[in-house]
Amino acid sequence: MVSKGEATKERILDQGLELASRVGLEGLSIGALAKATGLSKSGLFAHFGSKEELQLAVLELGRVRFVDRVVAPSLREPRGEPRVRALFENWVGWECQRGPGGCPFVAISHEFDDRPGPAREAIVAVQRDWIETLATAIRIAVDEGHFARTVDTHQLAFEIYGQFLAFHLYHRLLHDEDALARARAGLERLLAAVRA
Amino acid sequence: MVSKGEATKERILDQGLELASRVGLEGLSIGALAKATGLSKSGLFAHFGSKEELQLAVLELGRVRFVDRVVAPSLREPRGEPRVRALFENWVGWECQRGPGGCPFVAISHEFDDRPGPAREAIVAVQRDWIETLATAIRIAVDEGHFARTVDTHQLAFEIYGQFLAFHLYHRLLHDEDALARARAGLERLLAAVRA
Repeated sequence: MVSKGEATKERILDQGLELASRVGLEGLSIGALAKATGLSKSGLFAHFGSKEELQLAVLELGRVRFVDRVVAPSLREPRGEPRVRALFENWVGWECQRGPGGCPFVAISHEFDDRPGPAREAIVAVQRDWIETLATAIRIAVDEGHFARTVDTHQLAFEIYGQFLAFHLYHRLLHDEDALARARAGLERLLAAVRA
Repeated sequence: MVSKGEATKERILDQGLELASRVGLEGLSIGALAKATGLSKSGLFAHFGSKEELQLAVLELGRVRFVDRVVAPSLREPRGEPRVRALFENWVGWECQRGPGGCPFVAISHEFDDRPGPAREAIVAVQRDWIETLATAIRIAVDEGHFARTVDTHQLAFEIYGQFLAFHLYHRLLHDEDALARARAGLERLLAAVRA
């Protein structure tokens, strides 16, 4: 059971995450969040103390949301290829459901790739965890006999990640109606290549 | 032969492009560029008039540089698979050579995917041209008998784009030393799948 204060804080952070998806994490100042939420700057400072704290809290909420929406439901799918497919489908689903900015981690990863500091480290940790999750699901699919023994799990995770990133670009920037179909066709080609 | 004024302007724009790769196109104000170049704000205003004009001029220079470094040398390669390979190699080469920020179009595409306006339209045009260039090279490889008649040229261009974007993420954000090898292995898998 979360306290009223915790629930309020989470609601603010959800708006912060949405804002960061659109304007970037550097655009997520206490002032900008005050404007977006209608709350006072002093009230927000009481919650977060500094812009950097706010950025890290928003990233942490993003991580929790991603685990809830993408990772956890996939782990309820059968081990092997079905779970790999579920991870991909929930991932593109997350991208589509996340309002105007899409997946916040894609934008933030590009924004922070050459800005050292705690925010960059937090994003790197999120990305590494996710890649490990993908690679583990692939390794399980090898163990289950769905994928060939010769499959390089991290190579396949890289190539699946590429399909997602191309989907993000074609969908968000180019407004290509075939983006999702193309990403799924890309995944099918990969799965056909590695199937045992 | 370019005039001295034109050469100066181009030098300024090159610094602007480098700055935009690091801080984003929205961070590319006349003030920030003045600081980076050591020139006066009034001098820069005389060249560009407004931040938006500066942004568009920088994007146009980026387009010209990309054509010079990536597209033009690839078109000197033999038609067919060699040219598709050259486009990919010159593309990742461009990413690696472009200083700290990497390919400016990746960062800017994510920055502007939900900011309507002339800058967004300019980036969309650059991306569409590039995708057409890739798809045309693939179609030529089909015509030359290198790739199978059944190949969907735009689907393959999408999947190749994905390899590049995964390379960008692993290289820039994760500092993964295997990033380039993984991208090349991804390309090889694709070429093996479509070869006639």
